[in-house]
Order: sequence, then structure tokens, then C-alpha cells
Amino acid sequence: MKQRKRRMLSGMQPSGRMHLGNLLGALDNWIKYQQEYDAYFFVADWHALSTNYADTSRIREYIHEMLLDWLSAGVDPEKCTLFIQSRVPEHAVLHLLLSMITPVPWLERNPTYKEKMEELRERDLTTYGFLGYPVLQSADILIYKAEVVPVGVDQLPHLELTRELARRFNNLYTAVFPEPQPLLTEVPKLLGTDGKKMSKSYNNAIYLSDSEKDVREKLRTMVTDPARVRRTDRGNPDICPVFSYHKIFSEIGVIDRVNTECRTAAIGCIDCKKLVADRMVGRLEPIWETRAEWVKHPKKVEAVVAEGSEMAGKVARTTLAEAKEAMKI
Amino acid sequence: MKQRKRRMLSGMQPSGRMHLGNLLGALDNWIKYQQEYDAYFFVADWHALSTNYADTSRIREYIHEMLLDWLSAGVDPEKCTLFIQSRVPEHAVLHLLLSMITPVPWLERNPTYKEKMEELRERDLTTYGFLGYPVLQSADILIYKAEVVPVGVDQLPHLELTRELARRFNNLYTAVFPEPQPLLTEVPKLLGTDGKKMSKSYNNAIYLSDSEKDVREKLRTMVTDPARVRRTDRGNPDICPVFSYHKIFSEIGVIDRVNTECRTAAIGCIDCKKLVADRMVGRLEPIWETRAEWVKHPKKVEAVVAEGSEMAGKVARTTLAEAKEAMKI
Repeated sequence: MKQRKRRMLSGMQPSGRMHLGNLLGALDNWIKYQQEYDAYFFVADWHALSTNYADTSRIREYIHEMLLDWLSAGVDPEKCTLFIQSRVPEHAVLHLLLSMITPVPWLERNPTYKEKMEELRERDLTTYGFLGYPVLQSADILIYKAEVVPVGVDQLPHLELTRELARRFNNLYTAVFPEPQPLLTEVPKLLGTDGKKMSKSYNNAIYLSDSEKDVREKLRTMVTDPARVRRTDRGNPDICPVFSYHKIFSEIGVIDRVNTECRTAAIGCIDCKKLVADRMVGRLEPIWETRAEWVKHPKKVEAVVAEGSEMAGKVARTTLAEAKEAMKI
Repeated sequence: MKQRKRRMLSGMQPSGRMHLGNLLGALDNWIKYQQEYDAYFFVADWHALSTNYADTSRIREYIHEMLLDWLSAGVDPEKCTLFIQSRVPEHAVLHLLLSMITPVPWLERNPTYKEKMEELRERDLTTYGFLGYPVLQSADILIYKAEVVPVGVDQLPHLELTRELARRFNNLYTAVFPEPQPLLTEVPKLLGTDGKKMSKSYNNAIYLSDSEKDVREKLRTMVTDPARVRRTDRGNPDICPVFSYHKIFSEIGVIDRVNTECRTAAIGCIDCKKLVADRMVGRLEPIWETRAEWVKHPKKVEAVVAEGSEMAGKVARTTLAEAKEAMKI
């Protein structure tokens, strides 16, 4: 007997081209999830406004680039529902309804609220929308009655707020919303080519849309153990960012070899980098091939999200009707 | 040359049957406005949730009763657009978009925010939705590009916030929204039958839906100058609530006569009340007649708001498309 798959929801803000860190930290998981779950994956473009309202000039471009990366990496519209948040206005309506039952202190005690405000202190984030983004997140989840939401440890408090809001709604009116369960995801920390955390804003990222030449060049010039200046110097893989790539991309034999030979200067940085570059290119090649196809047909990308948003909209309308009936409005 | 009428927007929360105070304070104005303006009048049912989320059991009944009163009093769907807020989801979407550019301090400094929280302190109003109701109000106004909004003096700060939000949006993105102008309305304070302010919650109101018998009985037993106990006692019209009704409903000759004869005990309270009851019944009779027709045809009431909400929705969709284009989402 075939069991009904549990519904999962996950979204990403459109911040443009995705890098290897995003692939390993999120996309690879999505590709697993689309097999195991009734998966809903969406572009959280309204959420992007909460921190980027002052400059929205590139949102559309970012959305398109991100969708290209999703599809290239193997997110498969035949296996999941792919959509854009702003194409499903029911998110906004449920957000408004939930706002009426959300105590402000629940939002103020959100640990990431003040943290992020501090982190992005050059922007004015004292907005009503930024304060309320966990309410919008709750609406995103509850409008699909999602049962499972993949989260990192730092996002657990948000999901807890969603669960509290679901309970509060169910208690005040009628039981409409399941309490979504967190699926804790391990996010391997990928270093950038300068040894800091890989991030678009540090200009140290390897993008899924980089060419083979770009990737090899970025690896060729990337930072290694700074104490190893000459070919004959012994290196320390434990502090070398290139070795951290080996641990992720290379086979165990190569990892062991590099780990030994770097310490004795038996292998030089150029050769060591070449080994991992080959592996990385091998990993990216199928993504590049798929990407080339999608890039040729931007209308197909639009068709995918148009259909996905339509399907998501149907589910959202059904849930919203139930919620309104429960609230008797 | 016929000038384009300016667009006006006004809404009321559904709190059930309307009383004479509502007729004189709001509905009578609407009936004037529908001639002079391109008027949009709406049932603010989402706003009702901001203070009444804990008990929504009677909202539908309240909406229907209120619509009956509007139509009976002369709000004419041929002359204005009559609709229900929750039937136009674009209000919620624009609310969400505006939330992203609304500084929380703008909301916290709203003078009625803490006042109302104090006034209704038996309810928990520390909700996100209650804090943000001026944002929703702004969305209500701006989604129709309303140019004129009737307000009482106490509501001027809300409209100022709407104007500030329109400016902020126009500055950040593209000029989409006109800044609505306030139309200051004088609200004659109508006393209740106990001499306090007429209010549903004081149980001292005369309803548009009361029968003639009810109205006469309420006037017969209503409070007068408490010092005038016996028929032969002289009265003081200045402190008599019945005289306040005369000043509103009676002709100048009767007002003068009562003003004089009460002070000399030439007229008794029973006769004095009878005079004003006749006038009030005269004022209410056409409303009762129209009401009886609408009560017989609840489906017609539904058809009116269905059509009005459809028309409002068209305008709202056009504005929202412009706003989204301006924000490039």
C-alpha cells in the first residue's frame, strides 16, 4: 500500500546566483526531499522586501537566476511544486489574519530579530514588516498545512512561533492547522576562496553558473596555508581551505594522500588544487549542461513557475477558505 | 463640461445594528457624499478582527445588519460602490507591501494606539495586527487611490500616516499614490436615553431597526432633568437629554416653545417627549419602509455587495499591479 507522502515546505529569498555553499547547504537537500515528501519549494520574494525594500531594482533578475540554479541543480518540477510567493496572494491574506492573533512580545523575543537588525545596521530595519516576518513565514507554512519544514538550528525559534500560532488559531476558532514539525538540517559550512565563510557579499564564492574556466581560475588563485610560501615548505591541511574542499569533494584515497603529502611537502599547492578542481568540475558539469538548456528557454522557466504557482494557489485557496470559515468571516 | 468626481473612501467596522448616533454622525454624511464624490463605502470586517479576534461568532450577522441599515438609510448602490473589505484580497497584499516600508515608531507614536489599548484593557490588544491597523487603513485608502477621506479630528493622525506612507512609497519607488486629503466631519454628539453618549454598549441607544413602538417606549421612559420630579416642577432644558433631541429633530418653533415652556412648567415631560417622538418617528419612517423591503430579500443585499466588491476588486487589482511594477516585484 502506498503511503501518502507528508507535505514539506521550504523557501529561499531571491538573492541572485547561487554558489556552492547554497548547493551543499540547501539545494542538495531539496533534491532528496522531493523524492521523500510532497514538497513545496518557493521563491520568497516578499520576504526579500523585509530587508531589501530600499533597493528592489534587481529582484526580478535575482528570481530568474535563482530559478535557473534550482532547475539546473536538479530540483524537478515533475516531482515537486515550484512557485513564487507573490503569485499566491493567499499568503498575504493569511498573514493579515494571523497578525490579528500574534502578540507583539512573541515577535520581539525572536532572538534573530535584534541580531539581524544589528548585523544589517546600515539599513533601517525598524519596519513593521521586518518585525512581522515570522508571521509571514508562519502564513507561508500554514497556508499549505505543511507538516515538515527543514530548518537550521538558528531557525528553530521561528518554527516554534509558527507552531504556537497554529495552536492559538486552533484554540480560538476551529482546528484547521497541523503543527509543522522541524526537520533539522545539517549545513556543512563551506569556506570561500579566501578562507572566510563563502558568501556573495565577501566576493569569495564559486557560483553554480561560473564557467569551468572561472572555477579553475578561482581555485588556482585561492588562499592556502599562509605559512607555506615556497613549494618546499611543509603545509598544514588543518588550516588550509583547499583541504576543506577535498574533504567535501574528493574520494577518501585522495583526501588521505593530500593530508599526508601536504605535511611533508610531497605534494605542492598547484597539484593539490588541480586535484580538487577536477572533482569540483566533475560535480558541476551536469549542472552546467542542464543550465545551458534552461538558459536557452527562459519561457520554459516561466511556464514552470506559472504552473507551480497555479497549483500552489489551489491548495492555498482551499486552506484560506477553511481558515475564514473557522473565524466566521 | 462635466468634471470628474473626486474619489472618496470611507468604511465602518461591522458592530451590528446601527443607532441614531451612527445615522447622524456618519450615514447622513455618506448619503450626501455619494452625490458629490465617486464614493467607495466598505464594511471593514478585517479591522473588526483587530479588536475582536477573540470572539468572531457574530461578525456575519453584524455585517448583514449593518448593510441593511446602510441601504435603508439611503446609501444607494446605484450612486456609490458598496463592498466588503475581506472580499477584496488586494487590501491584504498592499498591506503586506506597505508593512515593509512602515517604521514601527510611526505606529507606536499613534496617539489612539495606547488610548484604545487602555480603553479596552480587558482584551489583550498587544497584537501585531492591532499595532498595524493604521497600515491596513492606509492600504484600504491607497488601493483605490482615494483623494478624499472623511475623518473626525481624532482620526487625523491616522490619515497623516497614510499620507506619509504614500510619500515614502512614491519616493522609494515611483509615484503611484495620491496623498489623500482629509474631509473634516462634524459629528453631532447624540445622547442616549440615559443622558450618556449614545452607544450600543451602554444599552441606551435607539436603533434604526427599532419599531415605532420601541422608539416611542424608549422616549417615554427616557431620562429628563432629574430635578423636575412633579409635573408642576420647573425644568432646565439645558441639562435635559430630551431637549437635546428637540434641537436635532424638531422645527425651530417647537424648539423655542419647549425651551420656554419647560422652564415655566407650562409643558410637561410627557407632552414634550411626545412632540419629539413624533418627529423622530417621522424621520425614521422612510428608513423603516425601505428596510422592510430589503429584509424581505436578503439575496438582493448579497447581490449588491457581490457586485460592489467585484467593481472595487477591479480598481484594486489595477492599483496593485501598478504598485508591484513600481517595486519591481
